[in-house]
Amino acid sequence: MPSVGIVSPQSMHFAEPLPLRSGAALSDYTLMYETYGTLNADRSNAVLICHALNASHHVAGVYADNPKNVGWWDNMVGPGKPVDTDRFFVIGINNIGSCFGSTGPMHVNPATGKPYGAGFPVVTVEDWVRAQARLADALGIGQFAAVMGGSLGGMQALAWSILFPERLRHSVVIASTPKLSAQNIAFNDVARQAILSDPDFHGGDFYAHGVVPRNGLRVARMVGHITYLSDDSMAEKFGRGLRNGDLQFGFGVDFEIESYLRYQGDKFAEYFDANTYLLITKALDYFDPAREHGDDLAKALAVTRAKFLLVSFTTDWRFSPERSREIVQALVSNRREVSYAEIAAPHGHDAFLLEDPRYMNTVRAYYERIWNELDQREAA
Amino acid sequence: MPSVGIVSPQSMHFAEPLPLRSGAALSDYTLMYETYGTLNADRSNAVLICHALNASHHVAGVYADNPKNVGWWDNMVGPGKPVDTDRFFVIGINNIGSCFGSTGPMHVNPATGKPYGAGFPVVTVEDWVRAQARLADALGIGQFAAVMGGSLGGMQALAWSILFPERLRHSVVIASTPKLSAQNIAFNDVARQAILSDPDFHGGDFYAHGVVPRNGLRVARMVGHITYLSDDSMAEKFGRGLRNGDLQFGFGVDFEIESYLRYQGDKFAEYFDANTYLLITKALDYFDPAREHGDDLAKALAVTRAKFLLVSFTTDWRFSPERSREIVQALVSNRREVSYAEIAAPHGHDAFLLEDPRYMNTVRAYYERIWNELDQREAA
Repeated sequence: MPSVGIVSPQSMHFAEPLPLRSGAALSDYTLMYETYGTLNADRSNAVLICHALNASHHVAGVYADNPKNVGWWDNMVGPGKPVDTDRFFVIGINNIGSCFGSTGPMHVNPATGKPYGAGFPVVTVEDWVRAQARLADALGIGQFAAVMGGSLGGMQALAWSILFPERLRHSVVIASTPKLSAQNIAFNDVARQAILSDPDFHGGDFYAHGVVPRNGLRVARMVGHITYLSDDSMAEKFGRGLRNGDLQFGFGVDFEIESYLRYQGDKFAEYFDANTYLLITKALDYFDPAREHGDDLAKALAVTRAKFLLVSFTTDWRFSPERSREIVQALVSNRREVSYAEIAAPHGHDAFLLEDPRYMNTVRAYYERIWNELDQREAA
Repeated sequence: MPSVGIVSPQSMHFAEPLPLRSGAALSDYTLMYETYGTLNADRSNAVLICHALNASHHVAGVYADNPKNVGWWDNMVGPGKPVDTDRFFVIGINNIGSCFGSTGPMHVNPATGKPYGAGFPVVTVEDWVRAQARLADALGIGQFAAVMGGSLGGMQALAWSILFPERLRHSVVIASTPKLSAQNIAFNDVARQAILSDPDFHGGDFYAHGVVPRNGLRVARMVGHITYLSDDSMAEKFGRGLRNGDLQFGFGVDFEIESYLRYQGDKFAEYFDANTYLLITKALDYFDPAREHGDDLAKALAVTRAKFLLVSFTTDWRFSPERSREIVQALVSNRREVSYAEIAAPHGHDAFLLEDPRYMNTVRAYYERIWNELDQREAA
């Protein structure tokens, strides 16, 4: 399957302060983004892709100087792919607070001349969406054909439909939830406590100390990673397989799963920023559009005007199908147009990033429909 | 409901070395235990209670100098309780490697004159059971009426039936599993990595440094605790309730669940030993009686002679009912007498420690049967 090929990240600086839900504001900020495909004459074929916890604006293709760095949703976005870049103008965007180029904790706070560190304001899904909307303004995109994301990205797609109901025709919400459960929050807090209590965290100012809270990040990633996989897929992939043929009777590696998770943790600790991890888990925890509507999700979604595709995966115990169904029910009670697919997939939450024909075909068919609507608009 | 009242822990020293599965040996060791009720004339009414991860020999009653320290299974064991101490002579035993009095990592290694620390040998469920058998020998108990435990304690009850088939008439295995899944091991390894990477761990020799790897223990307990509760019970008990009425937009406490888990973690770090935590999670990981029988559990259980009661809880996702059913099936295929109860309880793995009439009545009825058999033996 062809890819979008070599891509280049772009950045845009916004000098106007961004007021945040917390009451704080970012005085100015930069957003990193990538685009694939071509914006049509009436600017109606734009699709915004929102990223989840550890991803970025690099959704598809590769970089000229790093052909191994393939975009995180390259199987989904490209020429002839479910989100077809021969038809759609696709934007991948990196959120503020991230460690992949948009203004984040490792950048210099203009007010102090030092890195933000732990002083970076706590940002929310809604703040991200408002920042994204300004990029859309700057690109001259009044209305997206679709805003789409998985997991935390799905929350952004949902928030778009609430905050800017007229600015998207479709909201594609995959493997997501209207709010985290107590168990979800608990796992996030374990990860945060691991980071916060690492002596190398230095209250978030580890940049100045030339260290990284590697151990904390490693444990955070390990516990997170467990929740992305299903019990069954871990059993199938690793089972009780031993790394060295026999039990070691020590505290090194006995089981393959230990080796795998520690490797994932180590790798993550090398590239991910600890302050960003804290920020992004808080954004996850805080997302709860129904809260200000007396916990009535239907009320929160009453303002929406988009059409919706929701997709969930049967073995996703992090954001189970039940959570997607809550969104579907709330939308249906508002008489919104909703398509919903519950994909029988063994891979747990990670399934939203993986190749699965039923999943891919569901998204493909939905974008066919978006394309056909677009055609009719142009014909009209 | 009356309790066994004031109890006193006892200890017994064993001068004979204990060979371990690892190939190492403990040159000598002490076991702490408590007893409730009276051993009958033919020593046929003894019940051994095996503890799980964070518990001890203090199964029932209170200590004279600490009336708030109630035994961990006081609702299960006592006069008129399901395991009725008016009928049975009940022994609570503390395993080697523990931090509650039996020989463990904080004790002096006679070979070095210093605390064992990380040098304490890795012990297994089977090693514990062999040590327990020596206590039974010393107390003149040739055969237990029952050996009983929940979770890791259930593994010991199962191991008894394999290692000493003639030394127990009943094996009562509650909320347990024939072996940990990859996911179970993964959670244990997260906990271990949190402890091992805490700078205050000092390679296990933190006693000499006058510190405790508190942060590591705290994270270990938090992640463990999440797996003891069901998603639903956490949702019911905490939901998304806020600790301080509103979001704090910082990294302190926002949600009740965070406050609860951190409190549990802090409390645990005050009394539990980090080396013991490592040892006990390894014992959990290593338990797998089917491994040496080509992963055929039925073959592993072919040697058993006991009758069995197995109990599982519907919302226990740590050791799900499916895992108990594997044991039941393997026993049935060996034509063993098995009773099995799957209790619809909302509390997850923790349910085995909690009051639940169906659960308590199941155990009570089973011990009635054990008692009646005992009666017939005496009549015969």
